Amino acid sequence: MATAPSQRARVRRAPARADYERATIDAILDEALVAHLGFVIDGQPYVIPTLHARIGDDVYLHGAASSRMVTMLGAGIPACLTVTLVDGLVLARSAFHHSMNYRSAVVLGHARYVEGPQERAAALEAFTDRLIPGRWEEVRPPTRQELKGTRVLAMSLTEASAKVRTGDPVDDADDYALDVWAGTVPLTVEPGVPVPDARLRDGIAPSAAVTDWAAGAARLQTKRNA
Amino acid sequence: MATAPSQRARVRRAPARADYERATIDAILDEALVAHLGFVIDGQPYVIPTLHARIGDDVYLHGAASSRMVTMLGAGIPACLTVTLVDGLVLARSAFHHSMNYRSAVVLGHARYVEGPQERAAALEAFTDRLIPGRWEEVRPPTRQELKGTRVLAMSLTEASAKVRTGDPVDDADDYALDVWAGTVPLTVEPGVPVPDARLRDGIAPSAAVTDWAAGAARLQTKRNA
Repeated sequence: MATAPSQRARVRRAPARADYERATIDAILDEALVAHLGFVIDGQPYVIPTLHARIGDDVYLHGAASSRMVTMLGAGIPACLTVTLVDGLVLARSAFHHSMNYRSAVVLGHARYVEGPQERAAALEAFTDRLIPGRWEEVRPPTRQELKGTRVLAMSLTEASAKVRTGDPVDDADDYALDVWAGTVPLTVEPGVPVPDARLRDGIAPSAAVTDWAAGAARLQTKRNA
Repeated sequence: MATAPSQRARVRRAPARADYERATIDAILDEALVAHLGFVIDGQPYVIPTLHARIGDDVYLHGAASSRMVTMLGAGIPACLTVTLVDGLVLARSAFHHSMNYRSAVVLGHARYVEGPQERAAALEAFTDRLIPGRWEEVRPPTRQELKGTRVLAMSLTEASAKVRTGDPVDDADDYALDVWAGTVPLTVEPGVPVPDARLRDGIAPSAAVTDWAAGAARLQTKRNA
């Protein structure tokens, strides 16, 4: 079992749920559709939802070159990127022991601008393909102008932690005798049927990448739910 | 259309998606199962997932009285509470215009300890009943000792904003002629079948509150998906 990479990255509440293994952290980052990015301006923290994509030892972010968040992060201010997957409600016999099953990952540090063309291109492709694998190849690639207006940022995973709760409620010994139903209600994110754009030209069906993803995601969720 | 309650609460990116109406903000806070709470210690922002519950003009949080997060927040340090609902993937004809449909709410300010017994009791009940309405009445109420170990905090909604993206991709004019499928893939959070605790006594079925919630949530999602 890996230990906390730094004192400040150590999980403080319920440390038995902490997991510092990169495999755990990577899997949570890769499954989460959205990250919450924290940064500080004039002493006020801001937490903004944003798309992320992990490649190797970095998690990538992107945004308009003119964005305040992007320019502040690119200047190297301290940041925290957190993702959370809610896996279920945990219904205990007492109000106090109600909880949730979840998997979260927290990355501390700061971001750097990604300037190298190869790393930049890989990150841009990952933002699209991590949602729908194969989508990048189907769509119009970025123009020079679009590339110019977009900044890519990277945060290293050197100071990261995960926290995971699974399984049944944990009730007080006496409460197991109560006449109260206890257990968990699984929660999963499910894709619906793809909805064509109102302006889609006639005769264009969803690609295999899109339908495979929607079906595959549904199968995955059904399996996890079982 | 309401305007931003403060300069710092103004939505900066894609301001056309901003919504400062309390009805919008409240609905997003009430639907989200988890909040991401941002605060700063020694210049480092931390973003921690936590359960929240809104009552009227406040959003409530709770935690162990011994928790660093709780004691720092109770001391009045600046905070930011953000919730995000991911409603779907937005698949454009160009990589650049890929996006997500989402609803997010951001609350800036600071927290205060809730000391009044009535407000405290209402908040504790809300943490349970906002997940499964009626659950509070079914379970063992908190003991004096449990209450002593739990602090409740409140953040006012006076400095809050919402941001909402809905609908089709927005492609560049020329791209509508491309041979690329475009549209959205809805995403919904679905409850599964309740799973009994391994230590559940024989003959205890899930209560109506639990089964109604699981079925009702599923119906709601099906409706939204349609």
